[in-house]
Amino acid sequence: MSDHTHAQRVVIATVDDPLVLRGGGRLDHVEVVYETWGSLNAARDNAVFVAHALTGDAHAAAHTEDDRRGWWHRMVGPGKPVDTDRFFVICPNLLGGCRGTTGPLSIDPATGSPYGMDFPLLHMADLVEAHRRLLRHLGVPRLYAGVGGSLGGMQILQWMLDAPDIMDKAVLVAASARLSAENIAFSSVGRQAILRDPDFHDGRYFEHDTRPAHGLAVARMMAHITYVSPDSLATKFGHERDTTGVEMRMEPDYAVEHYLDHQGSTFLDRFDALTYLYLSRLLDYFDPFSEPSADAAIRAIRTRVQVTSFDSDWRFDATQGRRLAERLREDGVEVDFTVVASPYGHDSFLLDPPGYLDRVRAFLSPAG
Amino acid sequence: MSDHTHAQRVVIATVDDPLVLRGGGRLDHVEVVYETWGSLNAARDNAVFVAHALTGDAHAAAHTEDDRRGWWHRMVGPGKPVDTDRFFVICPNLLGGCRGTTGPLSIDPATGSPYGMDFPLLHMADLVEAHRRLLRHLGVPRLYAGVGGSLGGMQILQWMLDAPDIMDKAVLVAASARLSAENIAFSSVGRQAILRDPDFHDGRYFEHDTRPAHGLAVARMMAHITYVSPDSLATKFGHERDTTGVEMRMEPDYAVEHYLDHQGSTFLDRFDALTYLYLSRLLDYFDPFSEPSADAAIRAIRTRVQVTSFDSDWRFDATQGRRLAERLREDGVEVDFTVVASPYGHDSFLLDPPGYLDRVRAFLSPAG
Repeated sequence: MSDHTHAQRVVIATVDDPLVLRGGGRLDHVEVVYETWGSLNAARDNAVFVAHALTGDAHAAAHTEDDRRGWWHRMVGPGKPVDTDRFFVICPNLLGGCRGTTGPLSIDPATGSPYGMDFPLLHMADLVEAHRRLLRHLGVPRLYAGVGGSLGGMQILQWMLDAPDIMDKAVLVAASARLSAENIAFSSVGRQAILRDPDFHDGRYFEHDTRPAHGLAVARMMAHITYVSPDSLATKFGHERDTTGVEMRMEPDYAVEHYLDHQGSTFLDRFDALTYLYLSRLLDYFDPFSEPSADAAIRAIRTRVQVTSFDSDWRFDATQGRRLAERLREDGVEVDFTVVASPYGHDSFLLDPPGYLDRVRAFLSPAG
Repeated sequence: MSDHTHAQRVVIATVDDPLVLRGGGRLDHVEVVYETWGSLNAARDNAVFVAHALTGDAHAAAHTEDDRRGWWHRMVGPGKPVDTDRFFVICPNLLGGCRGTTGPLSIDPATGSPYGMDFPLLHMADLVEAHRRLLRHLGVPRLYAGVGGSLGGMQILQWMLDAPDIMDKAVLVAASARLSAENIAFSSVGRQAILRDPDFHDGRYFEHDTRPAHGLAVARMMAHITYVSPDSLATKFGHERDTTGVEMRMEPDYAVEHYLDHQGSTFLDRFDALTYLYLSRLLDYFDPFSEPSADAAIRAIRTRVQVTSFDSDWRFDATQGRRLAERLREDGVEVDFTVVASPYGHDSFLLDPPGYLDRVRAFLSPAG
């Protein structure tokens, strides 16, 4: 976290008050890095929690004192659907992450060196518990809304199941309550690219002055294809290439190849391989409706829910969004579900296909 | 080629009669390994050429003296659509391959050591030219039919463009006349996994007593996901896993992960990384209808064509098959195009979705 950012840091677990994990382990020291926008009003009823996706971070939007554009600048800001003139908006880095919040590269108090693969595997509930502690630290008793796309939306679902009356409204975009077998398959291959990279060194690459750059770049390039639609790749790149006629080249030549190459290498500048492993694995195991407590948990929900899927999203397809919405409705939750037409695939949640941002804006308005 | 196989070997290019390549290079020594089934009749008009796909080989079907099941045993054999009781069937290993026909691991006559990445990049026309020389060697003046799926079907298209009256009938399955940008993108990432593997050694891994096993396995696992359909993965594997409840594991746990792992490791037993690079790259550049000579070449075709796509094939989707069929029709070729319903994705061409094999059988029958 560099000096010019608006990010703040708080310790939310200590050896006397550890974070006990869903899987049985515990973390004796947890720090959470977060950013906020706007102000908490006197009634303390205008807080909106924004949950980031697999490769996101706390910087959802710019601040007056930090004008770097955020990953959700179309959604969050003054006059935006998540209106920072109106709401007190909170966005933390996820537990297990690599942007300040405790994760696999943090120091293990038991050993004095980074956890590496000794970091415990995390469940969605662990992320939520860390963030509920952040809310307590901020003096925020409840949320006007929780908002998230992809893994972010799935966190918001877990919030409702774990704290059924903590939020008035929930906005879930391009989310799923259980990944498809194909989705798990793609994640698994991405992880194998990292785990099999000789520079991974069983997750202790930081002791070898290296990192699994090839594996992480390959994982990212592959994942990126699945986050966009075939039509968007065709429209954007077609068959444009550097060579002409019968010339050929083994190394990248087509525009779409240069684009992926760029995606892979810029990702290395901002992301860590262990976090990629941990957060993608957490997604695979997310399956809250299969838990014995699910029926009772859903019946207890006091949140109105908006679920949005995109028709060209094939990684978290509309079938998964619909199943999520229908399961909540079955046990009495009020759910507004729509499939928005968009050419952009899964990444639509970060963009502005017609109708999408207005739909969220209307739902979050006082009358919504 | 082990002793018990039916495979035969022939030299089809020498320094006095080199294979001049479409891209301008030449190969001074080319051997082709092939298998045949059935007998050429006296009129020499019952030959059927079978072209294999990216990771196939000459062993399309079993022989009396070699009962190993072939990769296209459902299509080729006694009483099968490509009926070896009726036809003289020829299937060679592709140029650039790793199963006997000259490829990147063959000895470069100029250096006395394997080509590695000095092997020239190949065009589809080069594969066809090598195989036309094989036909001459076999005394086969023309073909009753050419049959192929995926890259195999694309070779048959190139045959028609290069030798417009050499075959009476052409069967193209799950083929394309130009890959989609997404298809190229997936291939590109697979190649990057190989090229960036430290054990690749710029393609001279054979001099280091190693090979890019991790990269090749990752490329295969990723590609395999794209050869099947999301529904077939869901039906076959669902969310079955070894662990239960809140247990988690970073290494493969879900059944779909074990399956991909198996796909990756068995592939290493039978395939070479350089061949994977060369043949996948050839596919990317295949774009025969964009060549200036295309109109005249199509008008000269004297072959009746059957094109089959599968509705769940998203790697070589039906849109690509339809475009291929329509372009041929525009210039007067008689084309029967159908999209067959199948749950199996691209791999459908190797399987037997209802109607598919009967459709090919009817087309190849004397009345077809």
